[in-house]
Amino acid sequence: MSRVWNFSAGPAALPESVLQRAAAEMLDWQGKGLSVMEMSHRSPEYMGIFEKTRADFRALLNVPDSHEVLFMQGGAVGMNAIIPLNLLQGFEQAAFVNTGAWSKKTSKEFSKYGTARVVLDNGNAAADAAAGAYVPDCAHLADRVNGQSMAYLHFCDNETIGGVEFNGQIENLANALDCPLVADVSSNILSRQLDVSRYGVLYGGAQKNVGPAGVTIVVVRKDLLERAQPICPSAFEFKTVADNGSMYNTPPTYSIYIAGLVFEWLLAQGGVAWAEQQSQLKADVLYNLIDHSSFYHCPVRKADRSRMNVPFTLADESLNAMFLSKAAERGLVQLKGHKSVGGMRASIYNAMPLEGVQALAAFMREFEQEVA
Amino acid sequence: MSRVWNFSAGPAALPESVLQRAAAEMLDWQGKGLSVMEMSHRSPEYMGIFEKTRADFRALLNVPDSHEVLFMQGGAVGMNAIIPLNLLQGFEQAAFVNTGAWSKKTSKEFSKYGTARVVLDNGNAAADAAAGAYVPDCAHLADRVNGQSMAYLHFCDNETIGGVEFNGQIENLANALDCPLVADVSSNILSRQLDVSRYGVLYGGAQKNVGPAGVTIVVVRKDLLERAQPICPSAFEFKTVADNGSMYNTPPTYSIYIAGLVFEWLLAQGGVAWAEQQSQLKADVLYNLIDHSSFYHCPVRKADRSRMNVPFTLADESLNAMFLSKAAERGLVQLKGHKSVGGMRASIYNAMPLEGVQALAAFMREFEQEVA
Repeated sequence: MSRVWNFSAGPAALPESVLQRAAAEMLDWQGKGLSVMEMSHRSPEYMGIFEKTRADFRALLNVPDSHEVLFMQGGAVGMNAIIPLNLLQGFEQAAFVNTGAWSKKTSKEFSKYGTARVVLDNGNAAADAAAGAYVPDCAHLADRVNGQSMAYLHFCDNETIGGVEFNGQIENLANALDCPLVADVSSNILSRQLDVSRYGVLYGGAQKNVGPAGVTIVVVRKDLLERAQPICPSAFEFKTVADNGSMYNTPPTYSIYIAGLVFEWLLAQGGVAWAEQQSQLKADVLYNLIDHSSFYHCPVRKADRSRMNVPFTLADESLNAMFLSKAAERGLVQLKGHKSVGGMRASIYNAMPLEGVQALAAFMREFEQEVA
Repeated sequence: MSRVWNFSAGPAALPESVLQRAAAEMLDWQGKGLSVMEMSHRSPEYMGIFEKTRADFRALLNVPDSHEVLFMQGGAVGMNAIIPLNLLQGFEQAAFVNTGAWSKKTSKEFSKYGTARVVLDNGNAAADAAAGAYVPDCAHLADRVNGQSMAYLHFCDNETIGGVEFNGQIENLANALDCPLVADVSSNILSRQLDVSRYGVLYGGAQKNVGPAGVTIVVVRKDLLERAQPICPSAFEFKTVADNGSMYNTPPTYSIYIAGLVFEWLLAQGGVAWAEQQSQLKADVLYNLIDHSSFYHCPVRKADRSRMNVPFTLADESLNAMFLSKAAERGLVQLKGHKSVGGMRASIYNAMPLEGVQALAAFMREFEQEVA
């Protein structure tokens, strides 16, 4: 068997040691004679797995006692409705920063429940080839939000399609806002240290930096548990989920177990501080190569480039198919860019080792020399 | 390693051959160098897995072209809200048959969205020791439902806690109803042949007869896709899910893959016809033993006993702990009854072989002889 370097945007690569352990434990978890998949979620064995997973996550992200950690279902796309259903009681509107496809989807879905006020927008930045995609200037954000009875301010911390990432700009303004900050961190959770106390809600689907698709992690400030609308489904009501220890309905038990193995692995590597350092190293390898080349181009403004998703184009688009095909021969897969951006995209989440990124960079250099 | 016989009510036992294959393919699916867990849901490899899984399910349950098969999230408890959000537009009420804890939970959640009309109820049957729990007489069901603008009639085909199961009573009346029939089949799906054309919606969490927790299967008649309320979250709107081939949001990819392996296994055994025959054989082993014993007692009326969940009590409740402890020594686990019923419960879904049930029966006989 030969493992590939998998640059998928999600579901994405997982640490090989996690998969090895999952395979070894598949039929018999720790001598108990059954798979984790077969365990009742109420059994002492599973409760142990669950509680360790939650505790490890809290430790990794340094979650304060003021916040609950919930394991839910439906992914970030589901959360686009679940969040207004949970936070809009007593309010009619919320504020949105739109920086790409995912944040736009969020504000659009919100319109089912209230008035979405887009207070900052980077327009169709992906198509603005001159400036490149960018994060809009947040300097006057509080002025646009405060005093208007916003239920919350929402932003997406990293846009996987456009490849733009905030770098703490909004987090640093949180204390100047008169409403809670809500962030979609699906694609960069656990890749940088952040100050959880500044957020009302942090949420993300697991399938990029955490584990398998099918589990959604929600970190919610406890005082926000009382704001659900009466029409919020019980299974998706933060307070109900919190009061029942994420077991009001049967949780996605096996996906949570795999997430737990990823958390153990990450703690052993050095936690989020390690991931943050590695992420920067890996991103630098690719962006430096791209910026020193006239063949490759990154359509994102330098300061706002994602450390997780690196979009790039070739000077000659007719070579795209050859690039992908030769890359695949070298075991470098899932590099095709999103259709709305074109070109290539390398997603380099926590589980992608520096070695994989270096292998991609070496191939990119060779390909350029071969065709240029 | 020694595998146990796992009688958990859910998440529950899976076929050993399925787990063996999952373990073998964990790091390298069919020579592609990555785990199914790591595959983009849009990749050709995963799309192939997904489409085969859906086709196998349609074949197993003989789903006609009039019905869509959707893979969703949130489980049956989530569906308690998702169904009214999808079917209540233009209606104010729906009809409910309450036969136990799960159906009661369904009608209660419905009250968030409309008026729940309970048209049949078996009362607190579990506590009615004389008659035993039972399925109420359905003879006049249509008279109680028709002509009243019900959005639908809901029932739970098998109650895992009380251990009562319908045996086609309501399905046989479907054509006499003037509203669609909606059934929670979480705990007996694929264990008996049914006529899908008679149902508006069939749904179930996977974690009993299908696969791991975290995937919900919904079979919905196509004309019902147009009845969603505007407040229905897009990720849970049947039409949106159907139009996007169950990929509007990232599906629980690995759980669906395991469900697919279970479907392949079931087809190889002989499909639902085989499962139906096996289920009756297994249930008969336990109920015959119980009925020929003065030590064990089943609190359910004979005609209405579940083939999936066999609740039973010991004549001397002070022996419960010893029963469970000695059973565990023999590798017979997860037999403790639900706290609302007491005693024991053996859940014997499709993946529990007759051999496991026979092992339990042998132990029960020995235990009775030892203590009686």
